Amino acid sequence: MHKETARLIELDREHSLVVHIGAILGWDQETYMPPKAIEERASQLALLEGLAHQKAVNPEIGELLSALETKNDLSDDEKAYVRVVRRDYDRETKLPESFVTEYAKAASISQATWAEAKRNNDFKAFESHLARMVELNRRRAAYLNPKAKPYDVLLDLYEPGSTQESIAAVFSKMKAYLVDILGKIRSRPQIEDRCEGLRVSPKTQELISGYCMKALHYERDRGRLDVSAHPFTTTLGADDVRITTRYIEDYFPSSLFSTIHESGHALYEMGIDPNPEFRGTKLAEAVSMAVHESQSRLWENIVGRSHAFWERNFSALSALLGEEGDSLDLAGFVKSVNRVSPSLIRTEADEVTYGLHVIARFELESALFDGSLSVGDMPAAWQTKYRDLLGVEAPDDRQGCLQDVHWSMGAFGYFPSYALGNLYGAQFWATLKKEVPDIEARVAEGDTLSVLKWLRANVHVHGSRYTPGELIEKVTGKPLDPVWFERYLREKYSRIYGF
Amino acid sequence: MHKETARLIELDREHSLVVHIGAILGWDQETYMPPKAIEERASQLALLEGLAHQKAVNPEIGELLSALETKNDLSDDEKAYVRVVRRDYDRETKLPESFVTEYAKAASISQATWAEAKRNNDFKAFESHLARMVELNRRRAAYLNPKAKPYDVLLDLYEPGSTQESIAAVFSKMKAYLVDILGKIRSRPQIEDRCEGLRVSPKTQELISGYCMKALHYERDRGRLDVSAHPFTTTLGADDVRITTRYIEDYFPSSLFSTIHESGHALYEMGIDPNPEFRGTKLAEAVSMAVHESQSRLWENIVGRSHAFWERNFSALSALLGEEGDSLDLAGFVKSVNRVSPSLIRTEADEVTYGLHVIARFELESALFDGSLSVGDMPAAWQTKYRDLLGVEAPDDRQGCLQDVHWSMGAFGYFPSYALGNLYGAQFWATLKKEVPDIEARVAEGDTLSVLKWLRANVHVHGSRYTPGELIEKVTGKPLDPVWFERYLREKYSRIYGF
Repeated sequence: MHKETARLIELDREHSLVVHIGAILGWDQETYMPPKAIEERASQLALLEGLAHQKAVNPEIGELLSALETKNDLSDDEKAYVRVVRRDYDRETKLPESFVTEYAKAASISQATWAEAKRNNDFKAFESHLARMVELNRRRAAYLNPKAKPYDVLLDLYEPGSTQESIAAVFSKMKAYLVDILGKIRSRPQIEDRCEGLRVSPKTQELISGYCMKALHYERDRGRLDVSAHPFTTTLGADDVRITTRYIEDYFPSSLFSTIHESGHALYEMGIDPNPEFRGTKLAEAVSMAVHESQSRLWENIVGRSHAFWERNFSALSALLGEEGDSLDLAGFVKSVNRVSPSLIRTEADEVTYGLHVIARFELESALFDGSLSVGDMPAAWQTKYRDLLGVEAPDDRQGCLQDVHWSMGAFGYFPSYALGNLYGAQFWATLKKEVPDIEARVAEGDTLSVLKWLRANVHVHGSRYTPGELIEKVTGKPLDPVWFERYLREKYSRIYGF
Repeated sequence: MHKETARLIELDREHSLVVHIGAILGWDQETYMPPKAIEERASQLALLEGLAHQKAVNPEIGELLSALETKNDLSDDEKAYVRVVRRDYDRETKLPESFVTEYAKAASISQATWAEAKRNNDFKAFESHLARMVELNRRRAAYLNPKAKPYDVLLDLYEPGSTQESIAAVFSKMKAYLVDILGKIRSRPQIEDRCEGLRVSPKTQELISGYCMKALHYERDRGRLDVSAHPFTTTLGADDVRITTRYIEDYFPSSLFSTIHESGHALYEMGIDPNPEFRGTKLAEAVSMAVHESQSRLWENIVGRSHAFWERNFSALSALLGEEGDSLDLAGFVKSVNRVSPSLIRTEADEVTYGLHVIARFELESALFDGSLSVGDMPAAWQTKYRDLLGVEAPDDRQGCLQDVHWSMGAFGYFPSYALGNLYGAQFWATLKKEVPDIEARVAEGDTLSVLKWLRANVHVHGSRYTPGELIEKVTGKPLDPVWFERYLREKYSRIYGF
């Protein structure tokens, strides 16, 4: 290893420590912090953000990178490391301080206004803030890469290497088959959700969550489960990856599958270790949002909602549910948790319609940035999209274009990752099935460790060693192709709905 | 306010934010952190300590202090503020970096060795480390104030203004009456502890703790109760003061009184607000360890173990205990929790013997530092002290001179604060009783708010505006006098034991 790399690692680790400290404060804020502490907590987080920024823009990093970039004897991991550090360094240094401050202020006001506007179902009150966040993101993109299309620059922030064109190509195929599958499902009698209305105490749901975490080999000595308003996974240290859930008393599958989902995120984080020399650095971080989402969704949907998984685990679930679960049987439970039904709210969508929610947002964002949609026309455009794609109509903007927080914070380009995660996950799963042909039988026997070991060795361990595009090719031998998700859905749902 | 003061406040607040961030990490480490996270947590805390130190030794602070110290038009609060900032600044800057590093390393190894030595009851293994910590503390004292006696310098760190001589004078009076009272108690029939052996679930104990916190007006929206191995109070922000307890299933008074004790600490922290302009600064911090301890002990012992308090609250306790508490009555309960019995372990001692445990340590520390006791003779000297003062003999060093962590960390001079707290508390209480003559009747009617309001207005609010010596004079009209604690004990225990 070159001495410049060693020094870069040193600086990087300090930055990572500060980021993890911030994560501890963030976790506490969402779980245990007493309400009146919020004001000082904001100052504490601002101080840490300032410190992290200061460490991230240290000119020494730029010098070390320049020195390393001229060398032609870097190891593969050094090369990859220089790539990811360069990427982050440019992002941090290309934005002028004055712009960062202006952006942060505007985003904070915009988010607060959005929350209020959503409560009051008042898009008009939010409109100018949305326009401002679009404009600020155009400027942000121009600072980062003045030669590229602004929306491409934003997409690349979340999914390195992706462009509006590449995603549109993938999404147009996905849209076609999702609409087709949804049509077929709608032509069949609807499944009854037999979990609805069962009353399960938070304590019991906590036991169910704990059981599932164990079944997935989540390491409780390197993490925790707590309760928060919205479930999340957060990394407080390489050996401290915590998840949260929430308990809805009359719908226990909500916490069950959110726990499996977040465990999937956490298993990824816990498994990253490309190279002991690079521990605690950016090389040992997740490669992208979409790959992260591929892990959570693979565990939640492909494994967690499969008949195979519950063959082994349903009796334990029954035992924990006690009398309240007497009306459930294995087949009925698995069918219930795979019920497909177009709805208004993305976060509550099933596996088939979820992608359509994301496509709607992607198409609306694209239109906002290519200028074909004005901010003021968003509510109507949203309605049209939802009617076309999902056949549903929101009674108000609260359940329409005001439902998500993302745009209010200026996170344009973030949504596609959610759907790309399904595509990555299905393609990984198809390869896993080819390499371990009896994997479903193994899961049915309780051997989820075979799944985890394969994901660890093929996906998790690498961290950011490869770009997402390189990773999918390396693991599956092919570039990302939406056909694997299609095959998975057709096979699964034709069985469930009998078409 | 002078512009130098304003700038000093700015720098001070940043330092305080970093300290609070460290407190969040420390709280998490003791309550919820998964075990394997410990290694990175240590690095995170070290980074914060480094940052706090860096902010504390900022030469600008020295310049601002020098400028302010030449002015003769400072307001009273500015004067007090300059005094406390100067004190901390000198402490931080007088120690050379190399010494701080050497000390930290030695203390860390010493503490780990102590823990191991205690487990193995092997004083010999710890002896050289204890000697090293004494030697390092002599050097520390020499750096801080080369003209003063080393032990005086150390005492002053915890109780500003105190010296070996001043404490010895107070403790010699206290020793005389504690020994006398203990003798009288021993001449009477022992009280049966009727709480012993009752089995109370952690859940019920948590409800009892919550009830007590409410009865004391602890603000739950500015703090929390959690569980840790050793109970503590910690300030994570001006509006975030958390306490912990632990639940011993067959001795519920342990958690009950530790919760009241820690609530007493927290109420003090929550009530500090000498001047809105100085919020978040050192002026808005507790004045000393002993004054802190006066608050926890006043609430725990003078209020919390009083007949008056339980007159009002015993029925609620009974209700929470359910059938398991059927054998308890008000009088029997109050007597049980005021049982006096000499024991080996300081942290489990009652109100009368506690001071003797502290005096033993003070006299041993004094002897270590004036050279009349060598480290190797500590085990025997400890046994002699305990035999003389308490009439008990430790079967091993684990329960003898190895019982406390303090010396292993080099915290010589800390122990006296614990006993001074009882003296301050009793003197405050005597004044409160003079100014609010019906205070006990009020408490018996459930009005603890009168106690809190008086403490808030007279003690808490001031923060570090006065030195401990100034504070006790201002509040009680007299310097610290151990006679108030004597009167309190004689009155209370003659009633309880009938002498």
